[in-house]
Formats: sequence, C-alpha cells, structure tokens
Amino acid sequence: MAKERGGAARGGRNGDSEPTVYVGILGKGTVGGAFKKLLTDRAEMVAEVSGRRPQVTGVLSSKRGDFGKILDASDVIVELIGGIEPARDYVTGALEAGRDVVTANKQLVAQHGNELVAAAKRGGAQLRFEAAVAGAIPVIRVLQESLGAVPIEKVSGIVNGTTNYILTEMARSGLSYGDALAQAQRLGYAEADPTEDVNGADAAAKMTILARLAFGAPVELDQVSYQGIEEVTPDDIAYAKELGLSLKLLGVAERLGDEISVRVFPCFLYPGHPLAPVSGPFNAVTLQSPTINEITLSGPGAGGPETAAAVLGDVVSVLTGGSPLFEENAKLRLAKDVKSAFYLHLEVEDRPGVLAKVAEILGENEVSVRSVVQRGLGDDARLEMVMHEVSERRFAAALKRIAKLKFLRAPPRSIRVIEEEFG
Amino acid sequence: MAKERGGAARGGRNGDSEPTVYVGILGKGTVGGAFKKLLTDRAEMVAEVSGRRPQVTGVLSSKRGDFGKILDASDVIVELIGGIEPARDYVTGALEAGRDVVTANKQLVAQHGNELVAAAKRGGAQLRFEAAVAGAIPVIRVLQESLGAVPIEKVSGIVNGTTNYILTEMARSGLSYGDALAQAQRLGYAEADPTEDVNGADAAAKMTILARLAFGAPVELDQVSYQGIEEVTPDDIAYAKELGLSLKLLGVAERLGDEISVRVFPCFLYPGHPLAPVSGPFNAVTLQSPTINEITLSGPGAGGPETAAAVLGDVVSVLTGGSPLFEENAKLRLAKDVKSAFYLHLEVEDRPGVLAKVAEILGENEVSVRSVVQRGLGDDARLEMVMHEVSERRFAAALKRIAKLKFLRAPPRSIRVIEEEFG
Repeated sequence: MAKERGGAARGGRNGDSEPTVYVGILGKGTVGGAFKKLLTDRAEMVAEVSGRRPQVTGVLSSKRGDFGKILDASDVIVELIGGIEPARDYVTGALEAGRDVVTANKQLVAQHGNELVAAAKRGGAQLRFEAAVAGAIPVIRVLQESLGAVPIEKVSGIVNGTTNYILTEMARSGLSYGDALAQAQRLGYAEADPTEDVNGADAAAKMTILARLAFGAPVELDQVSYQGIEEVTPDDIAYAKELGLSLKLLGVAERLGDEISVRVFPCFLYPGHPLAPVSGPFNAVTLQSPTINEITLSGPGAGGPETAAAVLGDVVSVLTGGSPLFEENAKLRLAKDVKSAFYLHLEVEDRPGVLAKVAEILGENEVSVRSVVQRGLGDDARLEMVMHEVSERRFAAALKRIAKLKFLRAPPRSIRVIEEEFG
Repeated sequence: MAKERGGAARGGRNGDSEPTVYVGILGKGTVGGAFKKLLTDRAEMVAEVSGRRPQVTGVLSSKRGDFGKILDASDVIVELIGGIEPARDYVTGALEAGRDVVTANKQLVAQHGNELVAAAKRGGAQLRFEAAVAGAIPVIRVLQESLGAVPIEKVSGIVNGTTNYILTEMARSGLSYGDALAQAQRLGYAEADPTEDVNGADAAAKMTILARLAFGAPVELDQVSYQGIEEVTPDDIAYAKELGLSLKLLGVAERLGDEISVRVFPCFLYPGHPLAPVSGPFNAVTLQSPTINEITLSGPGAGGPETAAAVLGDVVSVLTGGSPLFEENAKLRLAKDVKSAFYLHLEVEDRPGVLAKVAEILGENEVSVRSVVQRGLGDDARLEMVMHEVSERRFAAALKRIAKLKFLRAPPRSIRVIEEEFG
C-alpha cells in the first residue's frame, strides 16, 4: 500500500469521510484523457471499494507539467505516455521514490520489466501493468494472482486486435490482405503505420510479458520469434474455410520440460480450439495447466476506454493490496526447437514425379505427411499438404530444399496448424 | 493480511527463509483432499509468490479433529465442508477471531454472505470465495478487483456444468433429457441426486453471489427466480438446430435503472452471443459494462482439482493483499418485471381460426409476433412462434389464456430467446 502522503499542507483528508489518495497522470493522449475522465467519474466507487478517494495532482504532457512536482504531490503515478523514453526514467524514478506505479506501456514492460521490478523492490512500491496486454481482459491479474501458485504449461493468445480484425474480414468477405488493412484503417482498427501490428512485433512484446509472468522466466523480447500476417493470401483463407478452420495470428508461450518457447505466427485452428471463435478486433488468451485444464479470457482489445478501465482496476488494486512478488526462475532456458504441424501449399507444374519428389524430400527430413490434395489448374497443379507434428527445424530444412525445386511455379507457403484436444 | 501467529511455541519461522503461514482445513472430501495435496505440492511456489510458506495445522472431518484446536493453531481457515451447518458456525467464528477465511461454499455465501462479511469486518479478517462460483474461472476476482470501480450493467453466465453437459449432448446426439442425464451420471458430470443442478437452484445460488458483487445490492437467494431444464424436449433442440441457435441454461443478473433483476432460465442464444459456443461441462461468464464493452471468462466447471486450484489462488491472495471492501448499495431494488423475447411452441388441432385466436390473445396482451411457422402433422399442426421483446408479465398473462384454449393438444411451451448484439 502506498505510504499516505499529503500532510498538513494538503490537508490529508478531504471533506468526505475517506482519506485522499493523490494520483499523478503522465500522458495526455487518448488513453490519458479517457483515464482522467474515468477516475473522476468513478471517484465515489473507488472510495467505496478501496476506502480512499482519488484526487488528480496533475497531468504531464510533452508540453506542460513538471514531473518532479507531480511526483512530489502523488501517492500513485499512472504512466500513459507510451514508448521507452522518457517513460522509463519516470517510472523507475517514481518506483524508487516509493510511489506505486500503474502503466499501460507494453514496450516498456516487455523490454525493461526486470529493471522496473528491481526499482519497485528498492522503493518498496507496487508496479501494476494489466493494461499492457489485451486491454480490459484481466489476464495479468489472473496469471499473477488467481493462478499465482498453479503451474502454467502454456499460454496461447490472440493479443493483437488489428490483425484479428483483418483476418476476420478476409474470411468473411473475401477481401485481399491489402483491402482488409485499408478497411481496418478507415474504421480505426489499424493505425496509419500498422507495421508493428501486422508484422507480429506488437504481439511478441505482449507474449514476452505473459511468458515472464506464466513461467517466472527471464524472457527477453529479442528472444521471441515472430511472423506477421502480411503474406497471408485469399487462397490460405479459402483453404481454411473449406476445412472449417480459422486462420489466426497466435502468440504461444509454452513450457517444454526445462525449456520454454515463445513465438508469434499465423496458424490454422481447428473448430474445437477455444480461440477459434474469437473474431473481429477482439482479444483472447487461453491459459493451460494440468491443475485447471484451461481457462479462456476474451473481450475487446485495447481501445481508449478499455485500457483506461484496466488502468483504473490496477489503481484500485494498488490501494487495496500488495502486489505479488516476482521471483524469476533462472533455470528455464529458451527452447532451440519446438514441434508443430504444418500446412504446405505448393504451386507446381502438372507433370509426373512432382509429388514423389516433394514426398522424398519430406521423408528424408523425417517430416511425415498426413494428407495431400492435388488440384489441376491447366498446365499447373496445386499441392495442399498437411504434415504431422514435426521438429520445426526439420520442416524448415525440408522447405529450404523444396523451395529450390525447378518445377515450382511460386515460392512454397507454409502455415502452422493447431489441433489440440480441449475440454 | 493475517496477523502472524505462531510464537515461540511453534517457532514462527521454519528452517527455510520464509516465515510460515499456518493453514487449517475444514473438510476431508474430494475437494478437501485435492486442496491438501495441492497446497503441499505447491508450497514452494506459494512461498515464492507470497513470501510465506504454508503449513497445514490440521484437517477437520465429520469424524476427526477439533475445530477449536485447529482455529487456535491457524492463520488461515479453509472451509471445504459444504452445506450450511456447521460450516456457518465455523466460518463466522474464524472470521470473528481474526482468521482469514477461504471458502468454496456457494450455499453459505449465497444465503449468509452479508452475515459473513459483517463477521469479517468485526474480526478485521479477509474472506475470499472464488471457488464458490464457476470453479477455477476467476470471475469473483475480476468483479471485485479488475472491474471493482467499473459499473457493471449485466452478468450472464453458464454457471452449471451438469446442465450444460446435458443440453450439449441432447443437441449433439439427439438424446432425450432422461437419457442425457443418465449419461451425465455415468460419466460423473451429474450427481446421483441431480435435483439442485437440473432445476436451476444451483445456478440461482451462484447468480445471487455474482449479483451482489456486480451491483453491491443486497440480493437474497429467495428473490432469485429460477427454472431448470427438466422440461426441455428434443423438439426444442431440433428447433434450435434448424435456426442455428444454442439452447442454454442461462443465469442473468442485470441492472435496469434503479432496479436489478436476477434469474435463471433455459433460452435460445443466437450464434454471435459469447456464451453460444460454450459446450460440454464448461462454465463461462460474460460481464458487460459501457466502459469495457464485455469480457467473457470460460473454463471447466467445478471439479475437485479446479476448485482446489481456485481455493489455492484465494489463499495466495489472502497472503499477498487485503481484500476489497464490500459496501452495499441499498438503493437498488429488485425489478418486479423485465422484458424478454420468447419462443412459443403450440401443438394444436389443424382447423381454421386457430392461429387467429392465438394471435388475438397475444395482441390483447401487447405481445407482438415476430415470426410464425405452422407445420401440418396429420389432423394436428404445430405452431412455432417467436415474439418481439415484451414484458414477461404480459407474456405470462397471454400464455395463461392460451393454455386454456380448447384446440390445444398439449400444454404450451415457451423458451426465452436472446439475440444481443456483441462486439
């Protein structure tokens, strides 16, 4: 709990019955504005739930306000600037000065989480960052608290609303990737520069945070491999539709014995998967553990109001209780290889021996074929193959050789396939 | 945080670095056993997360153990006996003696929640009951903490796994209600006496708890209306299938201005509803608020391991922080009437004027028909009608008159229809 600030100078207690908690807000953008309004609108409810009535000490923007003054006057600092600097300086400084900090900054937590936790320990302060992942969906809290003592085996998430919107629209109305992206931009689901969203980097930052919490492992953002949706074609979507699958950009963090693997990739999900029905700009995260089977949390992604609501929830938590400790389990190493099932799409010349050659290369790399569909297209043919689970390294080696085959009409395309049994 | 017990007599600290927290367990059934094992297995992780190492002081069963002795030796009491007495005495006594209490007892919390909260306040102790609703799905925590200061408008839940399993099987394999129930009993999804599950009483107790938390309103269990699934027929399921709907036993707690309504009923859900895909023995809860749009939490219902995991999460929370305060908002009254859309199924003589008479009665009660399908069955006909949203009282009045019509071959059957826009 934050030390109570506000001595005689500020009166300490306001006219109401509850003591005051002084909240400083860093950032004046969409989320900053939504949070300030929400905190004011809900002050009564915060006082009821936490026993302390919030009062804003100041709002720092790039043009106005003095961080030092706001820090001095505040019990809790809410960081909504985004980006690394100066947010990193401010948050570290506030934590070291014993101020509890709530942040929605996924890049800061993903890239400098360990440093922030150390600063919080030095200052005896709390750090909360629910809004950094999946908007108002309380996945951080559930990982830290509800499941704090339950061994998590795997975290799977649709944690980027922009890409899920684009993929949903491609499937729904047959749009190309480019057209679906343009539509997402028109409707405000994608930013003017959507690079970090569509190339998987944004999802990778969020999965880094979830992996650290789930496994207590010192995962660094640059250890997380990611692949985006820019290469997805209407053919891939058509294939998914034909088989009743959904194409999703999935983040997976899993524990494999003493190793962990964290990655982001487009993949086909079978209908029974709890993330298969998640559509539009929604986010969802499934947590699996032998103890609890699996829990799925879903809801809208990070819009201004949703993020502000998550931040307010964190402020209430800071007021009502101590945050859990974070002890890292340095024994866990990052896996060098993992297993996946793959879909492989080849455009080839339609002549004898083609399938045999492809099958031979797959076999030599111990990649076992589960199904093949060959379709004639005039002089050409299309091979759609699904592999059994296989080492990703082996499959990549096979793919490299297949890509060099002379009878290929286009580069081979592969997409992971997830067919887990749930329930 | 619990007062630290264990002076010189018990040593206070064990050989490890963390101080000990003494945990007394009441109940030796499936859940009690699973919890004791989980607490022992995960003691290290609890110590890491909370900074205190748990040690079991004793397990009270109906045959063995002395409550007074266990209470004296414990910082935290975990109540897994179930039922009202003696659980109510034990929990109240423990809270008043300043011991934090974690319970999985839905009947106790639903029927005597206010009394328990008062005892907790008197004793300065924490009370947590995540496991009382929806197994390991952390809906209580999310309502209390993540959304503690967000105004909830509506809570919809599939909170009984037995009935959801039965309805899923009826839809999947065309079983009758009786056969699906027998199958659920064989597979352990239904108890030998399934009355409380299938008649909706179990779901009503859970919705009472959720309504109190969501609205801070003094809802009493006996104010919650409930209807079960015993009357559901394969015809209803066939109708749902034909229209792509799912038939679910839904609990709804909603705020309607200054009133609230809490009820449990079977209903048809349109495919876009977040609870429509929840199948088998799973539970799920959707929370709606203007601020967050909606969040859905889903996962397995309450089996022994899931309940034990939820209880362990509560124990960790008790160790790491204070629980939120509960202030009741006495201004909210229970609604006397609410609006619903209805499906009406009538088996009638196939003669002129039948539809006109039914339509006349509906019209006189201001019930507006949205669609009618009439099918001939030899001398008889079947009318399947869907109404627009209407006051439930008015519909009930119309139904009462329709039930008396001479040309009816069987009592009229009605099921609510939910077609909300989400996302």
